[in-house]
Amino acid sequence: MPELRKDPIIGRWVIISTERGKRPSEFVIPPIPTKGGLCPFCPGNEDMTPPEILAYRKEGTRPDTPEWRIRVVPNKFPALRIEGDLGKVGEGVYDKMNGIGAHEVIIESPSHQDTLSTISTGQFEEVLWAYRDRIIDLKKDTRLRYILIFKNHGEPAGASLEHSHSQLIALPIVPKRVGEELDGSLEYYNYKERCIFCDIIRQELMQGIRVVAENQDFLALTPYAPKAPFEIWIMPRFHESNFENSQKQHYHNLAALFSDVLKRLDRVLNKPPYNFILHTAPVRNGETLPHYHWHFEIMPKLVKTAGFEWGSGFYINPTPPEEAAEYLRGASPEESS
Amino acid sequence: MPELRKDPIIGRWVIISTERGKRPSEFVIPPIPTKGGLCPFCPGNEDMTPPEILAYRKEGTRPDTPEWRIRVVPNKFPALRIEGDLGKVGEGVYDKMNGIGAHEVIIESPSHQDTLSTISTGQFEEVLWAYRDRIIDLKKDTRLRYILIFKNHGEPAGASLEHSHSQLIALPIVPKRVGEELDGSLEYYNYKERCIFCDIIRQELMQGIRVVAENQDFLALTPYAPKAPFEIWIMPRFHESNFENSQKQHYHNLAALFSDVLKRLDRVLNKPPYNFILHTAPVRNGETLPHYHWHFEIMPKLVKTAGFEWGSGFYINPTPPEEAAEYLRGASPEESS
Repeated sequence: MPELRKDPIIGRWVIISTERGKRPSEFVIPPIPTKGGLCPFCPGNEDMTPPEILAYRKEGTRPDTPEWRIRVVPNKFPALRIEGDLGKVGEGVYDKMNGIGAHEVIIESPSHQDTLSTISTGQFEEVLWAYRDRIIDLKKDTRLRYILIFKNHGEPAGASLEHSHSQLIALPIVPKRVGEELDGSLEYYNYKERCIFCDIIRQELMQGIRVVAENQDFLALTPYAPKAPFEIWIMPRFHESNFENSQKQHYHNLAALFSDVLKRLDRVLNKPPYNFILHTAPVRNGETLPHYHWHFEIMPKLVKTAGFEWGSGFYINPTPPEEAAEYLRGASPEESS
Repeated sequence: MPELRKDPIIGRWVIISTERGKRPSEFVIPPIPTKGGLCPFCPGNEDMTPPEILAYRKEGTRPDTPEWRIRVVPNKFPALRIEGDLGKVGEGVYDKMNGIGAHEVIIESPSHQDTLSTISTGQFEEVLWAYRDRIIDLKKDTRLRYILIFKNHGEPAGASLEHSHSQLIALPIVPKRVGEELDGSLEYYNYKERCIFCDIIRQELMQGIRVVAENQDFLALTPYAPKAPFEIWIMPRFHESNFENSQKQHYHNLAALFSDVLKRLDRVLNKPPYNFILHTAPVRNGETLPHYHWHFEIMPKLVKTAGFEWGSGFYINPTPPEEAAEYLRGASPEESS
């Protein structure tokens, strides 16, 4: 059973995957299978993954057979286990609990060649629906506090398989960074009785200099104090704390803007590796929180390492967000394909 | 002038180096000069760096000439500038100030081939003295709040020059991670009237399972909830919040243990790239704080990327610290050379 352990000084939880237990000689990155290799995410290879949890597939086809559009499966090497109780215990100054949770893979397209910037916006919309459906389902498990959805695109960004996919990790704790956002935005709300994200959106639309793209419901911008060059946030223009509470039309418009932004990134930075993370309220808060505002954070992996920044929480960013936004605004996504 | 900007939600400050202003095409890592190339840190090339700030050199030799043992110079491409005032201003919901501060390089040995694991402990001790002397000097500047000392060793860990060196960044703000440690340890102190680090040391010495090495004054251990595999902390066994307040004998014993630990890392992980960071109290607090405890955190760069972990504050560590400590204890540093 993997363990969740808490740093006693700063309160950050860490998964220690005792079962994976990497020996020193194992810290060599396995090569990513290339096109033509036996890919466990390609249609026809459904038996190479654990049985599917969810799939959007052609009517009448059976689970774990081809003819799906989106397929969600458990991670074959999960960082967490769904069975068991939390078993919270102390050990002197330390705290730990069992590594209870879920670790799933969302396969975003049947085509091995596709990426999120090449699939249709209709297909992109289905990826977002799959995120939502999994959140709705996992919320029922009262042991879970947070559902972390993220994507590692490209080997330098941590992807271990080439076939386009996102990941979902359901946790019995709230990740530190999200907790900080919740605390910070609550403090602002208590003082001003306004959502800080809504205030940011208002100011950004007025100033215009950090806006990358927008549509009726969503805004893509480079944040004022980005920790990485060309970092982009995609935010709903309406107030909502929980991703899963959005309206049907919203997923449609989000897919359109998200696809647009990734195409711009591809064009300006020559198909960079990137990570993105969905920041949404903890699952226990079913109703909309007045102070929090869900959004996606996209970070192209351009600099070699986080280095000292990773350990100090202090970042040096060589590209002002106003310049990054200007490059991205100037890159019409249509010309990129 | 570079800018310091504050994230309005979580309160993290970021340096935006407007003058460096990297364009999209510039995100290609320059190759590290190899042996024999023209290295600005090698003796004889002193004119390739800005004039030295501090050097431990042969008596009677002039500044910026050879025959030094340790040399401290300003970074040629500084992230911060020492001239000017803080110029704190708000801009709607945002806060910024001028990027005032210092950015220095500590050249750890005249020999291009040396690393911190191959230099003598006497030389290592002088590296630590240089850290101390620079802190003592920079503390006099009342605009500065924190002095961050760190090392990027090896290209995957962010080193851009091969010749062994550490860096110092003096800041008008306290880095987020250090601020969290100060807050967390103060909360513990207010409740228990004990230093949490002292309690950790007591428990670790009793349990023994995460101890890597120790001597009279210092302890090296793998922390209970490490965010990276083979992460190591080196802590004074006596209570002290400020690195620069230590006794002469302490630097001697720290050099011995630090050198021992880096040799063990080299042996177990085949000379890995790594980062280390000195965690010490902010400079404004001249006297010893009862709740904080200075230490070094060493992180070998073994996994490809921080990926989603970087953006979520949530870490998955594939190697339990007890196993890492066992490997490191078993690696006698003497056999490694």
